[in-house]
Amino acid sequence: MAKLPAHMRAWELTGAGIDALRLAERPVPEPAPGEVLVRVRASSLNYRDLSTVRDPHARGLQLPLVPNSDCAGEVVAVGAGTESPAPGTRVAGCFFQRWADGRIDAGVMESALGGAIEGVLSESALLRADGVVEIPEHLSFAQAATLPCAGVTAWHCLVGVGAVGPGETVLLLGTGGVSVMALQLAGLLGARAIVTSSDDRKLERARALGAWQTVNYRNEREWDTRVLELTAGQGVDFVLEVGGAGTLARSLNAVRTGGRIALIGVLTRGQLDPTAIMRKSVGVQGVYVGSRRMFLDLNRALAAHSVEPVIEASFAFEQAPEAFQALADARHFGKLVIEL
Amino acid sequence: MAKLPAHMRAWELTGAGIDALRLAERPVPEPAPGEVLVRVRASSLNYRDLSTVRDPHARGLQLPLVPNSDCAGEVVAVGAGTESPAPGTRVAGCFFQRWADGRIDAGVMESALGGAIEGVLSESALLRADGVVEIPEHLSFAQAATLPCAGVTAWHCLVGVGAVGPGETVLLLGTGGVSVMALQLAGLLGARAIVTSSDDRKLERARALGAWQTVNYRNEREWDTRVLELTAGQGVDFVLEVGGAGTLARSLNAVRTGGRIALIGVLTRGQLDPTAIMRKSVGVQGVYVGSRRMFLDLNRALAAHSVEPVIEASFAFEQAPEAFQALADARHFGKLVIEL
Amino acid sequence: MAKLPAHMRAWELTGAGIDALRLAERPVPEPAPGEVLVRVRASSLNYRDLSTVRDPHARGLQLPLVPNSDCAGEVVAVGAGTESPAPGTRVAGCFFQRWADGRIDAGVMESALGGAIEGVLSESALLRADGVVEIPEHLSFAQAATLPCAGVTAWHCLVGVGAVGPGETVLLLGTGGVSVMALQLAGLLGARAIVTSSDDRKLERARALGAWQTVNYRNEREWDTRVLELTAGQGVDFVLEVGGAGTLARSLNAVRTGGRIALIGVLTRGQLDPTAIMRKSVGVQGVYVGSRRMFLDLNRALAAHSVEPVIEASFAFEQAPEAFQALADARHFGKLVIEL
Amino acid sequence: MAKLPAHMRAWELTGAGIDALRLAERPVPEPAPGEVLVRVRASSLNYRDLSTVRDPHARGLQLPLVPNSDCAGEVVAVGAGTESPAPGTRVAGCFFQRWADGRIDAGVMESALGGAIEGVLSESALLRADGVVEIPEHLSFAQAATLPCAGVTAWHCLVGVGAVGPGETVLLLGTGGVSVMALQLAGLLGARAIVTSSDDRKLERARALGAWQTVNYRNEREWDTRVLELTAGQGVDFVLEVGGAGTLARSLNAVRTGGRIALIGVLTRGQLDPTAIMRKSVGVQGVYVGSRRMFLDLNRALAAHSVEPVIEASFAFEQAPEAFQALADARHFGKLVIEL
Repeated sequence: MAKLPAHMRAWELTGAGIDALRLAERPVPEPAPGEVLVRVRASSLNYRDLSTVRDPHARGLQLPLVPNSDCAGEVVAVGAGTESPAPGTRVAGCFFQRWADGRIDAGVMESALGGAIEGVLSESALLRADGVVEIPEHLSFAQAATLPCAGVTAWHCLVGVGAVGPGETVLLLGTGGVSVMALQLAGLLGARAIVTSSDDRKLERARALGAWQTVNYRNEREWDTRVLELTAGQGVDFVLEVGGAGTLARSLNAVRTGGRIALIGVLTRGQLDPTAIMRKSVGVQGVYVGSRRMFLDLNRALAAHSVEPVIEASFAFEQAPEAFQALADARHFGKLVIEL
Repeated sequence: MAKLPAHMRAWELTGAGIDALRLAERPVPEPAPGEVLVRVRASSLNYRDLSTVRDPHARGLQLPLVPNSDCAGEVVAVGAGTESPAPGTRVAGCFFQRWADGRIDAGVMESALGGAIEGVLSESALLRADGVVEIPEHLSFAQAATLPCAGVTAWHCLVGVGAVGPGETVLLLGTGGVSVMALQLAGLLGARAIVTSSDDRKLERARALGAWQTVNYRNEREWDTRVLELTAGQGVDFVLEVGGAGTLARSLNAVRTGGRIALIGVLTRGQLDPTAIMRKSVGVQGVYVGSRRMFLDLNRALAAHSVEPVIEASFAFEQAPEAFQALADARHFGKLVIEL
Repeated sequence: MAKLPAHMRAWELTGAGIDALRLAERPVPEPAPGEVLVRVRASSLNYRDLSTVRDPHARGLQLPLVPNSDCAGEVVAVGAGTESPAPGTRVAGCFFQRWADGRIDAGVMESALGGAIEGVLSESALLRADGVVEIPEHLSFAQAATLPCAGVTAWHCLVGVGAVGPGETVLLLGTGGVSVMALQLAGLLGARAIVTSSDDRKLERARALGAWQTVNYRNEREWDTRVLELTAGQGVDFVLEVGGAGTLARSLNAVRTGGRIALIGVLTRGQLDPTAIMRKSVGVQGVYVGSRRMFLDLNRALAAHSVEPVIEASFAFEQAPEAFQALADARHFGKLVIEL
Repeated sequence: MAKLPAHMRAWELTGAGIDALRLAERPVPEPAPGEVLVRVRASSLNYRDLSTVRDPHARGLQLPLVPNSDCAGEVVAVGAGTESPAPGTRVAGCFFQRWADGRIDAGVMESALGGAIEGVLSESALLRADGVVEIPEHLSFAQAATLPCAGVTAWHCLVGVGAVGPGETVLLLGTGGVSVMALQLAGLLGARAIVTSSDDRKLERARALGAWQTVNYRNEREWDTRVLELTAGQGVDFVLEVGGAGTLARSLNAVRTGGRIALIGVLTRGQLDPTAIMRKSVGVQGVYVGSRRMFLDLNRALAAHSVEPVIEASFAFEQAPEAFQALADARHFGKLVIEL
């Protein structure tokens, strides 16, 4: 393996807003025992990263901070005594560096990349040896970089919280990174997905990816009523609620008695009337990405079926601000990726 | 068995409000195959019954309606071919006449006594043979009559939704029928209960029943902060949220990361900010009483430990309006019962 | 609806063995409240039915007994007050007449058709109104008749016990009715199925139905070793163990650490060394068909994906003994059905 | 903190049998990043340790090996950058050094102390920083040293596999370390325990610890029949099967339809007829100790109720061979501990 360079470039957030991103030079860190150094080849963007960039103070973050949680690349160095992964391995980082398996706790939340700890929008990233997963062979670095946050979240929601089974009906709101990956997973689970959007072209793409039904909520403002019609008045078994103004009340109307809702929405605004939760015995579960185990399981499922995540657009490392602006414009279907 | 009388008295709700309760005479019904006739010996009151009496129109109920879901008594006649339970058996009715086991669905909800179907505040009640459970020997009719709604709800919340285990901490709001039964069950589960009330005498009774800690929310308006202190800043593992103005936001503050909340509150008012659910990965589950299986399991647990439900006051059948008024006054600790 | 005939033909088991089956004439029974009369249009055979025919005394059954648990047909009469299903509805009977949902208990087992209670190999069958399910539109009576025992068992094993998820690997032994249905369900679940058989033509059919890998255990006596190879030495996540001499020891060898095995095998013979269960932290769950809820869920999944059960051969009602003989010969792939 | 000594004493297994234990002198190891050095104050013995000593070759272990999985002591040094636990913290080691939470896998099994890796019967032990748990205040080092294997196993079985609830009945075989801890936990769970032994004095001690019923299997050879009688013919809900010649067949007879059995038995001998598993829809789960999360939960439960593990006898470090011999003699009730 070639000698590592002494310095690397990294995007740093120095204040609030996309304009406060600065391309800085930093020394390449050296991995301690239990750590690996990853040469970053791709990083994807999530709304959470955009929120961080827009308002780091709301989260009480220390600046400057390297943003972004998601990266894929290859291991270029490992700490003393670290046997796995070996240098050369293609890996993606885990959103939470310390959530191997089992249940979340406050300690897990202290290990979120690009928030509680330094992110990965840099030429090299120092990660825990047990905080990465090997990339399935059929995926490129760019594709793998879409998974740590959006992919694992979709898996956690559908497979974990929803325990969605064949023949069940799921409601997916919009066509962002989580919803599009959830659409692909719904197909693997044998479930029927109803997808909403305000854009008919996106709905057409959703149908091409296997959506059972689609609803344009610009045309059908009462989209919850439409979902009830599509399910013969029963309501869907599961909603992946990504938020947005006032969507939760409609989701509660669209779900069946005894149904369940996974709530991930950084976009969520507005208040919720809890009587709907009671009246229909609904379960609402907040979801914050997921564990390394879920990532491994996701990768195995994608590999078994050669599923490729949907990338809407790719940007060069130097174009990171343009990538964040594209995310803010919200015209994408699936994921936006920065490639190095 | 003595010959059945031809007529019985029954309380009928003829309009909105306690004043609209009328004592009527009705023919004693005859059990069809699969049905049993129960001579009612006691009926307990729940807030849901009071809500029904106060505003039957909000629920779209047909009047006149016999109110109340909870009764205990003895089987006096069975339909042709019905082998179990035998005449003479001491039984309590199941809140839902058609929820044997497993998950709730819309059909179950059509079988709620004293709402979707005729209630039991009458001298005799016609129930499904598989819609009753045998009463544990150590319980009186009055004690058993406290269980179908409040007891089963408490069990469903703690054992089902909460899956509360030994050493866990649970938060119980107030000292109504569900919370007091939950306090008793928390002891059986090895959990530590924190109980809130505005009345120090009730808190003293709660401690006598095994509460680990108590909080007077009149003195400590920020009772959620107090709960966090009592749990070393971690928050409780589980909240049984019975509702009340604005309690849910505080419950979300008082629960730990990854904790769970069972929501039963007919008292619930106000709106909920869903960001707290996401931020802490909390699960919120609406609970609507429970299945016959849960009732059987509850009875077995109460019998194994000789636990007796707490009855605050007992009223004669003719005093039913006074009993409802006492519930409305909300001065009780535990349950109010009407005995026949 | 046409007037019902007064008499019907029914196969009766009068002793041990296929030769002891007699075609008898019986009065058509009349449905009591809560019951329905079904005009039987098809009945499928299961090994359990063959075992019953071969040795009814081992099970302590009262003779004569109408054999068979599985039927599909149409409702021709309903008991007084029975609203659902309406006459004319296409239905299949539930193996257990009294297992609506939730967990099995000793009472459930007393309601098994064609064993604890009279079976359905007759022109009409009297069933509980809540002991039938509506047949999906895309299925014929013959196809629907394959589901009550084998279909529900496969669902219970894969979806219930196995909780098999996308990307997981499952091992299916042989190509009988349960294994072939499980193969079809594995596809809906996104799982990869390994199928064993001693017949290459059956393995070819299995691959055509979506098997990921196949193993001819006549050629590869150490088929467990082969399964380990196919799973990179890890072992499969789940085994549907239908039994046979000595298969369980091999299944335990072929399953991964922490894996699970559903055990249904009426064919099971031989002893098991429990140390393998401990050493690998395996879960072994006995499965006895399943609940009506599972049947409803199965039907929904089959309907959503237009899955049709595999019927190897169909026999006329009068040919029932030939059908049992064909089952005994064990040359089939999928199910054998008797049509009326 | 005082300077560490350069050398320590450790028991080494140099061949097969208690006689092959040698007291050796070794250099005190230095903790790398992510590691802690623990001054061992107590170590308890488990049958698994005795099996290892008796026949290390059967397990393919490299000799010399320091035996024993269980220790408690205080942290005396930590690796660079290791923040928690701090020096001076009272800790117990985790049986598996790499099982934080969630499900077991083959990797976990490679981290078993005193088997796959070096054990802890030495004056100092090098452990992973996330491979220890803090000791509850109310426990001595000797008491805490009983927990890593037997305590966590009992918790995993009753709380994890059994999900034992209040009012349920559990069957505990014998009065070894796991069974006695399980008896104490059964009390916290509100369950009723039936305990078997061949020694009336041990059964008396079991009753003093809260056993609901006891059976002397020397007097009642058909102890499964007796258990059925004690449960009104229903059978127990859960069996913690620790093994022994032929016990599993009786346990299967003593468990209810749909019941569950946790199988831990290093003592297990003999074969199992799987038809009993199927006939009664029983679940049999192999259990191999448990995760760090379970240990934390166990500790919290013990602390909440001030439960103290039962220690039968304590030995000096130099008496380790006598301690192993006492375990082999099997006259104890609860645990045997070596104190330093």
